[in-house]
Amino acid sequence: MFNWEKNLIDIEPYVPGEQPAGDIIKLNANENPYPPSERVASVIREFDAGNLRKYPDSNSSVLKKAIADYYSLDSANVSVGNGSDEVLAFIFLSCFCNEKPIFFPDITYSFYHVWARLFDKDFRQIPLDVDFCINPKDYHEDNGGVIIPNPNAPTGIGQGEGLLRDIIEGNTDRIVVVDEAYSDFGEYSAVNLLGEYENLIVVKTYSKSRSLAGQRIGFALASNRIIEKIEAVKNSFNSYTMDMLTLEIAKASLEDEAYFKECIDKVKKTRKEAAETLRKMGFVVMDSQSNFLFVSHPSVKAKRIFSELREKGIYVRYFDIPRLENWLRITVGTDDEMEKLLSEIRGII
Amino acid sequence: MFNWEKNLIDIEPYVPGEQPAGDIIKLNANENPYPPSERVASVIREFDAGNLRKYPDSNSSVLKKAIADYYSLDSANVSVGNGSDEVLAFIFLSCFCNEKPIFFPDITYSFYHVWARLFDKDFRQIPLDVDFCINPKDYHEDNGGVIIPNPNAPTGIGQGEGLLRDIIEGNTDRIVVVDEAYSDFGEYSAVNLLGEYENLIVVKTYSKSRSLAGQRIGFALASNRIIEKIEAVKNSFNSYTMDMLTLEIAKASLEDEAYFKECIDKVKKTRKEAAETLRKMGFVVMDSQSNFLFVSHPSVKAKRIFSELREKGIYVRYFDIPRLENWLRITVGTDDEMEKLLSEIRGII
Repeated sequence: MFNWEKNLIDIEPYVPGEQPAGDIIKLNANENPYPPSERVASVIREFDAGNLRKYPDSNSSVLKKAIADYYSLDSANVSVGNGSDEVLAFIFLSCFCNEKPIFFPDITYSFYHVWARLFDKDFRQIPLDVDFCINPKDYHEDNGGVIIPNPNAPTGIGQGEGLLRDIIEGNTDRIVVVDEAYSDFGEYSAVNLLGEYENLIVVKTYSKSRSLAGQRIGFALASNRIIEKIEAVKNSFNSYTMDMLTLEIAKASLEDEAYFKECIDKVKKTRKEAAETLRKMGFVVMDSQSNFLFVSHPSVKAKRIFSELREKGIYVRYFDIPRLENWLRITVGTDDEMEKLLSEIRGII
Repeated sequence: MFNWEKNLIDIEPYVPGEQPAGDIIKLNANENPYPPSERVASVIREFDAGNLRKYPDSNSSVLKKAIADYYSLDSANVSVGNGSDEVLAFIFLSCFCNEKPIFFPDITYSFYHVWARLFDKDFRQIPLDVDFCINPKDYHEDNGGVIIPNPNAPTGIGQGEGLLRDIIEGNTDRIVVVDEAYSDFGEYSAVNLLGEYENLIVVKTYSKSRSLAGQRIGFALASNRIIEKIEAVKNSFNSYTMDMLTLEIAKASLEDEAYFKECIDKVKKTRKEAAETLRKMGFVVMDSQSNFLFVSHPSVKAKRIFSELREKGIYVRYFDIPRLENWLRITVGTDDEMEKLLSEIRGII
């Protein structure tokens, strides 16, 4: 090792999940099986590339206003970013500034502990109960802030207003973040609580419900005071996180509510049918409020199903970690994709 | 103040520079006056929006290979990001990990000290000499790493290989970053030194020379060992910093070398002519290796010229900070824009 190498950060290289391409059925990344709105396609087609010589609006004002209107909030309650991952990273930097551990579930989105480590924040992973559920009382203990995903991943379990209120009211002196990456496929969003709790942040993404994983768009909704600080960090990190095309695409997607609802409804219908079929095959299937199913078979090992499906060109997600070693996370695809998946699974078990 | 507000970061909200729009002559942000390559326009026009439902390649492999080929390097020597600002932020996080102050010039890109503060890194701003030049010996003192822009902004002064070698050889135990945001308009790039010095990082952007400020593309070139760490931080912050459209646009721009050179040559020619005219009017004009001119008039205050131009709808950049209070930074526009600018200046002085 050369002396200069001692200046490099000591961090485990985080390896992003596998993203296979080619002629496969890809049910491993919770991507939407339907394309984004035709308005998105048309905004791209008609975009004047000559404009790109100039910087975009660093405040993303037009998009913030559109998102604020959509949720009946004010622009000052919105911060947008390069995927909800960037927004969450800025929240970790700006809203958990104390010496106490950040609380989040032990089984959850795999990035929370990565951000905590990157920014040198203490954290505690709170075990889910035996049914993979969050016990709100666990989050009342003194902490440095709370982040919970609702619905949770990879379980797909969604919690209602009662649990959310319980957690927020147990944390009036801290910031509570609800990561709603999947909530558009569920029955409850904490957006309705923003007016009541100034220490609440709701984070959302275009990646799943708006079929725009490839374009990287996420946002946070919160009180002015919190948004100001998230924006201060954003503006100290990169003035222009949102490029011109992304700003227009994000706005266009919001304007096509009918198509948005249609896709959500199709995913929900397919989810219900696939869950029923899997249960008939003997699988335990968690009630899903998301665009994926979390399933386990009492006699056939998840890892075996995962590997055999993969050989057939069908990719689902397997987690080789404690408590999850016999579960699979299956993204809800089109009816056709699910039919092929279910038929292969039938052959395996 | 509520108790929960104590968890928010204590940071000055950094305010991005003014980006006026409308029917004005905009020479205040070092944007390129020419549109990006026609290949960029065609990539956008022909892009299949349906692909956006999927995540992009988190490793940006195709783009990294294209950039590596362009500079006769290997993909393992390239890290790409959402503008060079994001790349530089990751470098501050990953490559200056020690207790000593990061050294950079006192008059330079205004973001270096913002990143240092955001990530809680000590820093020292080294004064430029009386001619606004970097004295390499000032950077030999014990430090936590060095970042210099070459050419520097807002002076436009570019340094050659000698000065770069002097600084790097005085810092064999630290990382040295050369920020080449403007070097495509100059005569020297430190890319040729990468093979010799494993502790050197060269950072570049598409914002200026490739007319793509609106699309947010930047990259770092360095030894594998450094790139690994920048990528570890990038992958711990946001797996997908580059969206699908941006990846394709960035590659397309690289493929049109003829147009790239043509635009650079036009900017250089206009820069030379404008500098000559300004000198004839009595201005002191720094020798520029960038796409802007740094000028001062011995008898007419810069602030007055700035304000009067603004009233006429011509925006240049004025810095109300010590040593720069009588200087203007004027982006090189089209010949037509420069003619209007020069004619207005003639009227003012």
